[in-house]
Amino acid sequence: MSILLYDLAGADPALRFSPYCWRARLALAHKGLPTQTLPWRFTEGERIAFSGSEKVPVIVDDGRAVADSWAIAVYLEHTRADRPSLFSGAGGMAHARFINAWADSVMNPAIARLILHDIWTVLDPGDQEYFRASREARFGMRLEQVQQDREARREDFRRSLSPLRAVLAAQPWFGGDAPSYADYILFSGFQWARCASRFALLAEDDPIAEWRGRMLGLFDGLAAAAAVA
Amino acid sequence: MSILLYDLAGADPALRFSPYCWRARLALAHKGLPTQTLPWRFTEGERIAFSGSEKVPVIVDDGRAVADSWAIAVYLEHTRADRPSLFSGAGGMAHARFINAWADSVMNPAIARLILHDIWTVLDPGDQEYFRASREARFGMRLEQVQQDREARREDFRRSLSPLRAVLAAQPWFGGDAPSYADYILFSGFQWARCASRFALLAEDDPIAEWRGRMLGLFDGLAAAAAVA
Repeated sequence: MSILLYDLAGADPALRFSPYCWRARLALAHKGLPTQTLPWRFTEGERIAFSGSEKVPVIVDDGRAVADSWAIAVYLEHTRADRPSLFSGAGGMAHARFINAWADSVMNPAIARLILHDIWTVLDPGDQEYFRASREARFGMRLEQVQQDREARREDFRRSLSPLRAVLAAQPWFGGDAPSYADYILFSGFQWARCASRFALLAEDDPIAEWRGRMLGLFDGLAAAAAVA
Repeated sequence: MSILLYDLAGADPALRFSPYCWRARLALAHKGLPTQTLPWRFTEGERIAFSGSEKVPVIVDDGRAVADSWAIAVYLEHTRADRPSLFSGAGGMAHARFINAWADSVMNPAIARLILHDIWTVLDPGDQEYFRASREARFGMRLEQVQQDREARREDFRRSLSPLRAVLAAQPWFGGDAPSYADYILFSGFQWARCASRFALLAEDDPIAEWRGRMLGLFDGLAAAAAVA
């Protein structure tokens, strides 16, 4: 039986860009689990109320609901211990929490400041009002202003990724010799921008772009095949 | 036989503040290995030339020299596999590289911008000239200017530590249920400031300060007993 994944969608139901849903999608693929994604919109809280969460990702595994990307990864690691590990040990899980926290509090907010209005443009009209109100309250300005001057600010963003370059200079994946959930955490931020915006986050000769290219090819090109704006 | 650790010292040979030496010191303590530290100064490159490195930490383990804090941690993990693990598995080591890279490229440079001139004041007179010239070249300004207005900039620094708070809200140590090399990486930055400066990096009610207090108590108070400026 497939696992169901409630997955944020744009006006085009095929457009799936949420970085947190991509983390879950790639974790499911890593475990080799058949998955059926269900397009979901911000304004459809009642459709996932059964999970106790108001936000996606939510998975349903044989009747059991799990919400929140981190909780989903831990759930899959424990319930599918016979499948390829997402964390490669207790230390891998504990240390991945730091990477998850950094992506949530530093990298993804920085990406948002470069593409926030672009995201709004791909949303379903019913979602646009919610998104504008909630994000303008969070950022304290109009969506259009948030991504203003982004060409000038892009260099700062690229500099902020120096930890990623240092790791990739030492090992091919954030997981070491093979991709781990750490790779999915970090890649999903770039996949978010790739699907919802045409603004180029990385220079073509950035080693992070080379790694992103390898990530796009994993699982028979799962991420590469995703619809883009 | 004790492992020798060449350890950066101030004008007072008992003053040991290098964050990279503290990583090695705590890794050695974690493995329960008797250690003899040897005070070393920036201007004593010839004393460690045998190691192939111009910088500390350098350890000598029964005649074998290993330089660089990360290489030392990996060496100890492999050669003392029967002792408590620093990484708790291959994933733990791979993911700790990100934490190491973040501390090296974000956190420690940010701490330097708050205490750089304080560090200079505790150095041996022979080291002060080297330190001033090399750091003023790196920062592009006088040492005194680097830490100017630090009271005003401290809030930005504290905000930049949000990933640490997110992890500590979920688990007691960066290593999960027990301290790991990730804890030693991050703590060593705070220990650097504690030993070389009287500038308070953290608010007393910061959860990071509570964790730092627990770190100070590890190994019979090894870090708490360190000399301070």
